[in-house]
Amino acid sequence: MLGNFVYANPTKLFFGDEAQKNLAKALMPFGKKVLLTYGGGSIKRNGVYDDVISALKSAGKEVVELPGVMPNPTVEKLNEGIKVARENNVDFILAVGGGSTIDYAKAVSVSAWYNGDAWQRFWVKQEDPTPGERIIPVGAVLTMAGTGSEMNGGSVITNHAARMKIGKVFGVDVMPKFAVLNPKYTFSLPQRQMVAGIFDTMSHILEQYFSGDDDSTSDYLAEGLMRSVIASSRVAVKNPEDYEARSNLMWSATWALNTLIGEGKPQDWMVHMIGQAIGAYTDATHGMTLSGVSVAYYRHIMRYGLKRFVRFAEVIWGVIPEGKTDEQIASEGIDALESWIKEIGAASEITSLGVTPDMLDRIADSTIILTGGYQTLDHAEIVDILRNSL
Amino acid sequence: MLGNFVYANPTKLFFGDEAQKNLAKALMPFGKKVLLTYGGGSIKRNGVYDDVISALKSAGKEVVELPGVMPNPTVEKLNEGIKVARENNVDFILAVGGGSTIDYAKAVSVSAWYNGDAWQRFWVKQEDPTPGERIIPVGAVLTMAGTGSEMNGGSVITNHAARMKIGKVFGVDVMPKFAVLNPKYTFSLPQRQMVAGIFDTMSHILEQYFSGDDDSTSDYLAEGLMRSVIASSRVAVKNPEDYEARSNLMWSATWALNTLIGEGKPQDWMVHMIGQAIGAYTDATHGMTLSGVSVAYYRHIMRYGLKRFVRFAEVIWGVIPEGKTDEQIASEGIDALESWIKEIGAASEITSLGVTPDMLDRIADSTIILTGGYQTLDHAEIVDILRNSL
Repeated sequence: MLGNFVYANPTKLFFGDEAQKNLAKALMPFGKKVLLTYGGGSIKRNGVYDDVISALKSAGKEVVELPGVMPNPTVEKLNEGIKVARENNVDFILAVGGGSTIDYAKAVSVSAWYNGDAWQRFWVKQEDPTPGERIIPVGAVLTMAGTGSEMNGGSVITNHAARMKIGKVFGVDVMPKFAVLNPKYTFSLPQRQMVAGIFDTMSHILEQYFSGDDDSTSDYLAEGLMRSVIASSRVAVKNPEDYEARSNLMWSATWALNTLIGEGKPQDWMVHMIGQAIGAYTDATHGMTLSGVSVAYYRHIMRYGLKRFVRFAEVIWGVIPEGKTDEQIASEGIDALESWIKEIGAASEITSLGVTPDMLDRIADSTIILTGGYQTLDHAEIVDILRNSL
Repeated sequence: MLGNFVYANPTKLFFGDEAQKNLAKALMPFGKKVLLTYGGGSIKRNGVYDDVISALKSAGKEVVELPGVMPNPTVEKLNEGIKVARENNVDFILAVGGGSTIDYAKAVSVSAWYNGDAWQRFWVKQEDPTPGERIIPVGAVLTMAGTGSEMNGGSVITNHAARMKIGKVFGVDVMPKFAVLNPKYTFSLPQRQMVAGIFDTMSHILEQYFSGDDDSTSDYLAEGLMRSVIASSRVAVKNPEDYEARSNLMWSATWALNTLIGEGKPQDWMVHMIGQAIGAYTDATHGMTLSGVSVAYYRHIMRYGLKRFVRFAEVIWGVIPEGKTDEQIASEGIDALESWIKEIGAASEITSLGVTPDMLDRIADSTIILTGGYQTLDHAEIVDILRNSL
């Protein structure tokens, strides 16, 4: 049963192989000084940087560059961004990259004009900006599909010293004002990164799907997205330049995590909590930490949400129910998920990500335990799931 | 393949059985004088009117009432609204009702301060308001699920003298700023109206689904919505006060026509064109005109989009493909659609709506012919479809 909720998502999306043509006009309503933030410089090799600079110029903007945003943006990098944004008194932040860069831009957006420890306030204490507090508006040019950061308020920051990787979901003021979604901008991404993004998308859907036992439109929408992601992933891993497949993967990623498919229902998110704890210890690619633990996690909780796992097996994987018990049907669904993880080349275990048996206890200690799923885990269960993921 | 498009939908939705508690706050940012528009007065019997007046009072608004919006709002009623809005110089229009009332509010919104024939300009000539032109902002309290008017820019107006019923889709400025979606507000609706809304929703999805032959995420989302609508409709026709089913039907109706499931693909909309032509001659309930012609229409175009009709049969209706030709599978899908129309009590023919054989030629004359579907119809084909719908 759909509960009470508010849906509001004002991010304007420009989609398609000519989406960047809208960028200059989209920048117009905002101030003159733009902080341009991006990652390791791949955008300079694939032409995206040139497209963006050209749009910034034709919009008459003054540009301050802040490159070097790492895959799991750190507190130290956040502090650098705060300094640059303040010193230059920027009016707008344009993030060009994947989820890490966009997450980072949102983090700088809320932190720049706060006179205190932003990490403690927004991530550790999970506070929101107060009404009227200065927030620098953000825009995005997406170069990797998966995180959904382009149309939500999420921002994950990593504190290596504290072994903490924490996500914070901000409100509509912090969400990108617009996002340029050109599927061709993702063509030059290494295959491993593309696959990590595909599983990240799938995991976002699963985290919202495996919870609750109501009949909810949200779950039917989730099933539609999953079926599209699976179909397109099979095309894209064989031909990464298949525009149709990459466009579907990009669009699915956006809608998998912009709140739509989770409205009015409980949500799980424990795969992300375990994955983020692994990330805090290994700095492994986010999507791969999720695929690495998902099969063991779902095998563990299957018994607590059996009916939904049966539905998952039948609707998503076409498991034929005749002559089987619910447990068998549900298991075959998870088997199919595992086969698909291997088929697309996502990590099916966590040893290759740098996790060793001696780390498991500490990773479990660092895992934030949520209560929205079919079963609330204890420390021993998390260690078990991690051990079964080695 | 997803084409180039812009997605922007700023309408804020308050959903749930306590959604109206957000109304007073939602009204705050707008001016003092509110034009309150509604239909035949059913809202005074079911308590919705009292909830709305109480919110308007607590928001400190001055209210001008404009009741009597009819199911297919007319040009004459539009002209009355223009007069009332201008004379009172209202700051905001609050529509309380179903799609007709919200469509009407949008029509008044764009027309009130235009010094000319609004019907000719916006509906006949399909012009848009010019940038900077005065548009009165609109909000909605929904009491009937189906049209999707609460989260889009659509507005259908009927001109009986000219035998024309025309829809116009306005841009984001005309879309409701917010909508209150309380499923319980739909409980007191007569069953026939509920069913008409259910088929209207289904038809919106079908119009966007039966077009194009690409692999598109939009179609997978459409399939998710259809499966949810069908499941909930079967519960709701037996127990109209099943909150879960009515909430799913309300939410599905909104997402069926807020542009999402049509992004990046061609669309058909010929069932609506024929249905609207019938409406212009008979004033029949919109959703019933759609169900009355859908089966004959889809049987007619099936051969031109066979692959999609096969997919529809298998994914939506669970038709088993083994041992059948594509034509047989596709036909069984349309048969299943027909059975469902009868099961929920929607009109399965147009004779009961007041259509007589002598009208068919004139209805076909009044039908606007669109080219986005699997087959562009000519006059004779429309007459054929109408005859097969008698």
